[in-house]
Amino acid sequence: MTQLQVASHKHLLGTQGMSAEEITSILDRAAYWEQAPTKLSNHLNGKFVANMFFENSTRTRFSFEVAEKRLGAEVLNFAAAVSSVQKGESIYDTVKTLESMGIDAGVIRMKPNGLLAEIAQKIKVPLINAGDGNSEHPTQALLDLYTMRKHFGELRGLNVSIIGDILHSRVARSNLWALKTLGANVSFCAPQVMQAPELAAHAPYVSMEEAIKGDVVMMLRVQLERHEEGLFKSQEDYREAYGMTVKREASMAAHAIIMHPAPINRNVEIDDELVECGRSRIFEQMGNGVPIRMAVIERALS
Amino acid sequence: MTQLQVASHKHLLGTQGMSAEEITSILDRAAYWEQAPTKLSNHLNGKFVANMFFENSTRTRFSFEVAEKRLGAEVLNFAAAVSSVQKGESIYDTVKTLESMGIDAGVIRMKPNGLLAEIAQKIKVPLINAGDGNSEHPTQALLDLYTMRKHFGELRGLNVSIIGDILHSRVARSNLWALKTLGANVSFCAPQVMQAPELAAHAPYVSMEEAIKGDVVMMLRVQLERHEEGLFKSQEDYREAYGMTVKREASMAAHAIIMHPAPINRNVEIDDELVECGRSRIFEQMGNGVPIRMAVIERALS
Amino acid sequence: MTQLQVASHKHLLGTQGMSAEEITSILDRAAYWEQAPTKLSNHLNGKFVANMFFENSTRTRFSFEVAEKRLGAEVLNFAAAVSSVQKGESIYDTVKTLESMGIDAGVIRMKPNGLLAEIAQKIKVPLINAGDGNSEHPTQALLDLYTMRKHFGELRGLNVSIIGDILHSRVARSNLWALKTLGANVSFCAPQVMQAPELAAHAPYVSMEEAIKGDVVMMLRVQLERHEEGLFKSQEDYREAYGMTVKREASMAAHAIIMHPAPINRNVEIDDELVECGRSRIFEQMGNGVPIRMAVIERALS
Repeated sequence: MTQLQVASHKHLLGTQGMSAEEITSILDRAAYWEQAPTKLSNHLNGKFVANMFFENSTRTRFSFEVAEKRLGAEVLNFAAAVSSVQKGESIYDTVKTLESMGIDAGVIRMKPNGLLAEIAQKIKVPLINAGDGNSEHPTQALLDLYTMRKHFGELRGLNVSIIGDILHSRVARSNLWALKTLGANVSFCAPQVMQAPELAAHAPYVSMEEAIKGDVVMMLRVQLERHEEGLFKSQEDYREAYGMTVKREASMAAHAIIMHPAPINRNVEIDDELVECGRSRIFEQMGNGVPIRMAVIERALS
Repeated sequence: MTQLQVASHKHLLGTQGMSAEEITSILDRAAYWEQAPTKLSNHLNGKFVANMFFENSTRTRFSFEVAEKRLGAEVLNFAAAVSSVQKGESIYDTVKTLESMGIDAGVIRMKPNGLLAEIAQKIKVPLINAGDGNSEHPTQALLDLYTMRKHFGELRGLNVSIIGDILHSRVARSNLWALKTLGANVSFCAPQVMQAPELAAHAPYVSMEEAIKGDVVMMLRVQLERHEEGLFKSQEDYREAYGMTVKREASMAAHAIIMHPAPINRNVEIDDELVECGRSRIFEQMGNGVPIRMAVIERALS
Repeated sequence: MTQLQVASHKHLLGTQGMSAEEITSILDRAAYWEQAPTKLSNHLNGKFVANMFFENSTRTRFSFEVAEKRLGAEVLNFAAAVSSVQKGESIYDTVKTLESMGIDAGVIRMKPNGLLAEIAQKIKVPLINAGDGNSEHPTQALLDLYTMRKHFGELRGLNVSIIGDILHSRVARSNLWALKTLGANVSFCAPQVMQAPELAAHAPYVSMEEAIKGDVVMMLRVQLERHEEGLFKSQEDYREAYGMTVKREASMAAHAIIMHPAPINRNVEIDDELVECGRSRIFEQMGNGVPIRMAVIERALS
């Protein structure tokens, strides 16, 4: 894991290496946009933003698109499934092509780890990471922090448990870096095969019993098909061992909240009844994504 | 079939249960939009409308998009084929996600019967049904009525024959409810296996000879692959039995018109030569879809 | 090959049959748009342009979309992969449908040779060819000429070599007609099976040694899978015989430039190191596509 954030540039590649001031200024600006009196501003009139998704997405792409349009930008949407990436064109060539056409910023999601940082060095327009491989998903972490700050007022000293497939989770990584920079305490909870060895120095792995005592309990989407056969015989086994069940929810602290980056596997990592329960912030997170992304895009283009 | 229309709400889920006044006011408002002096209004500036298509569509999605843009709205397009629905996300979660992001209205098409009404009860933003399962496709019926009213001036007493796969047709159902509410007479014509038993109480099944005597003869798209093998040996067999052939067209009344919701199987349910013949209203129907959808979206957001 | 250009109409179907004056006026207008003081104009406010791509595309579709939005038009994007073309709807019906909905111009790409000219005769709104079969890709040729004119000032007398799969290349054909009309000299270079017999009367086939002596050396994308087995044992064999290698580049004239319509097969028709070398105009071509398409769309709608 190299330091992805290039301070001298407007790229937003990851939360690793971002300062507390940078993060806080984005959260503050998002609060401004959340309260903005009108839905449409003309901040970015005449600017073109390209959403380049080399991996499928509903939530994240829409969230960026709403943010861009609320800022008055012209939006170009690209999804790999309907493009010449199928003909073997490289991701770099696509990004470079859009740069040549005069876009002012690019939002980008891709599978290959490490490729984004490489591309960003060769591209002049600001790039915003919308999820790269298992590496980072910085806007997700920023909206998560925003959601926590709205509830608790302050992030310093907050105990955040992240439960599930840490190994494959860019959400876990981006949250880890951002939360620690803001002074929160992060714990992970995962079966052995879903633990990320390189993160062990940054956050302890705790038991499920311990994890659900957190102020924030963040459940990750699990993709059992990614793991070796026999790990869990069924989704029900996973739920028993690592799911946010109704029973576990009952033992959470009164003030504690449940989060999930979505999409949700109902009755796997979280029980259906809990998705919209009182302490769930899941759909509020999605709502908070819009002002966060407005702040991030504005920053990239300012 | 439950009553889908919830009077106290701005949803448009079906024509079943809509009053004659409601339908007429939409047709009247469409007439206003068809004649509007400029193509773009600012009625919906600052409003976001999401087109959520969990089933493929060309015509309907474009028609809504043109309508939304002519009203000045910001448009978000979602097609299931390029989204995380592939990752198992439920339709409900997608709609709820878009609601969380602040959309003002949703246009939605989906395959599962009955799901839309269920979702609409849990969603606060108005939803417009762009086709759900075999159940309803209300804007198609409204544009069909609009097209008939333009030609005949009046719907009361009009004899409308609907020919083809009634069983699987949401277009037939939405037309049935709306036409009967406006005082038209509806007849169906279909082979036994394409008849919908639950509709028999509402409209008689007549022979093909009888059906083509109608003032309006509406052909439905047939998907022979949906029916058991051996029903028709070929498309040509279907055409012979239930197609609008050149020969049958010649025996229609002088004032009668041919309609079809499209997409068309040329030389199956309608002969190629008839698609753009003098009495065909097929492409005019598509044109009328735009002002109808402007009226419907405006109503949802007013 | 019939003459596609219909002088009395605003369609842009091909460069074959366009006059030198027409071509030059488009290049001149593109130069105006390239220098335009603001990114967004309101030239086409209230106009709807539909991009109808029945064949995948990244570059071309985006380039048109940027051009349309910079002109102030409302843009509708259609990709066959997510439409009812899958349900067997004909291309003609789709175009006719969009015309019925009130679009003001259509940009269209499709695979079948000859179909576009046929459709254009039946459609009233101007259609712009964004690539049809092996036939024509006129906006690509216009942006190529624009790129050459920017570098050399003048096209008359320029020696342009086009290397690769001439047989299947609409880019080669559109460039041939436009370049010859403007007084440039065109040579082709291709293995026997990639030669287009019907073009032999218009441009000589020369050896690779001869071809790389041109003022402009235009490499075409090669799709080896289109050709019979055994032609080239590998991509490396093709590169050896017809690729722009570092070694060949070194023997080009000092003032000469390399072009490629993209997408690029790196290390097949052009060495990776040359894609962004000093004499490569590849990404500049893509940038020039935007003002060219602005000029073309403006012309269609004026």
